[in-house]
Amino acid sequence: MNQDRRDRLRDAAIAVLAREGGRGMTHRAVDEAAAVPTGTAKNYFPTRDALLRAAAERCAERYHALAEALAEPGPQDGAGAGAGPGAGPADAAQLAALLAGLLRDTAGPGRTRVLAYLELQAEAARRPWLAALLDPVAAADFAAHAHLLRAAGLPAGPERARALTLALHGAIPHLLTGAPATLAAAGLDDLDRFTRELLATVCGEETR
Amino acid sequence: MNQDRRDRLRDAAIAVLAREGGRGMTHRAVDEAAAVPTGTAKNYFPTRDALLRAAAERCAERYHALAEALAEPGPQDGAGAGAGPGAGPADAAQLAALLAGLLRDTAGPGRTRVLAYLELQAEAARRPWLAALLDPVAAADFAAHAHLLRAAGLPAGPERARALTLALHGAIPHLLTGAPATLAAAGLDDLDRFTRELLATVCGEETR
Repeated sequence: MNQDRRDRLRDAAIAVLAREGGRGMTHRAVDEAAAVPTGTAKNYFPTRDALLRAAAERCAERYHALAEALAEPGPQDGAGAGAGPGAGPADAAQLAALLAGLLRDTAGPGRTRVLAYLELQAEAARRPWLAALLDPVAAADFAAHAHLLRAAGLPAGPERARALTLALHGAIPHLLTGAPATLAAAGLDDLDRFTRELLATVCGEETR
Repeated sequence: MNQDRRDRLRDAAIAVLAREGGRGMTHRAVDEAAAVPTGTAKNYFPTRDALLRAAAERCAERYHALAEALAEPGPQDGAGAGAGPGAGPADAAQLAALLAGLLRDTAGPGRTRVLAYLELQAEAARRPWLAALLDPVAAADFAAHAHLLRAAGLPAGPERARALTLALHGAIPHLLTGAPATLAAAGLDDLDRFTRELLATVCGEETR
């Protein structure tokens, strides 16, 4: 099996889930989206469940790659100068910028991945094996946010990390739908202000 | 058109969405779930989009009925004695109990309705008319939580109502999936403690 072709098929599975929902997730649709000969997806991922698993694993990989890239201060990022790779945000302002970047990705370049993930989450409520596959991915997000709060020098008790993580999870479907009254009510029409205010609310006024 | 039959079909549409996802949402499946003659659903809701709309409106109706029932102190609820109907929670403890009741419903009797709503939300990311239909429902939830915070005598600025509402929205898919590591990481394995701590985090330590 060719790893490049395998990744291409997994990306195609994500694209099909995002575009057509679980409803359109067939081997034929994945072959077409990947522009490979009919039968290729079935060869790599023999069942529909295997396709769902492949999409889920690929979503998690792409999310982690993005989070790592955003957490490493770029060479042009003056505020992060001096921090080693992986050191994370140095203060509340840097953390707010990182979280705004993740939300901006959800509504922009990452839209396909995140939509596919929501479809998988809905399927997981009906398929215990998929729920088990997604469980460590979702659970790790709470630990990751606790780590980010600590790195930024903010209070990082479990209640705060939970409130922050769940509020970010709750923001995602609204960003994907993009309905204007909901975005305004949620404060998601300005993502930089949103993450600053969310951190201040969750961690206490002193972080404003 | 018969209103009882119409409601029965709308409830059946919710059940089909919850059980099979958008994928299984056909007129035939709704007829079967409602135990009515083939063709009945098509008669009431001629297109698949009309079925989705009917399910969305029914979800909203059922959610509002539940929220109203939970907000009115029952005769056996000593803490609420003396409060008029619709007066809402009198303090943080009553609000925490109300929110825990809503989350308990999500994971229990309301599971079908909430699963269907998540399917609709995913479809809304691909269908602007459905996004427009759900928009006021989701937006109203932020105002409702601000109202509940005020009724309970808690700080109710928009940032707090937003953080609370989004964290509750974020909790829903995790409750539906029921994956144990995620529930533990989110603190959702004890809903009464969860809502108490969430209110304390969002509104400040003095509410503990």
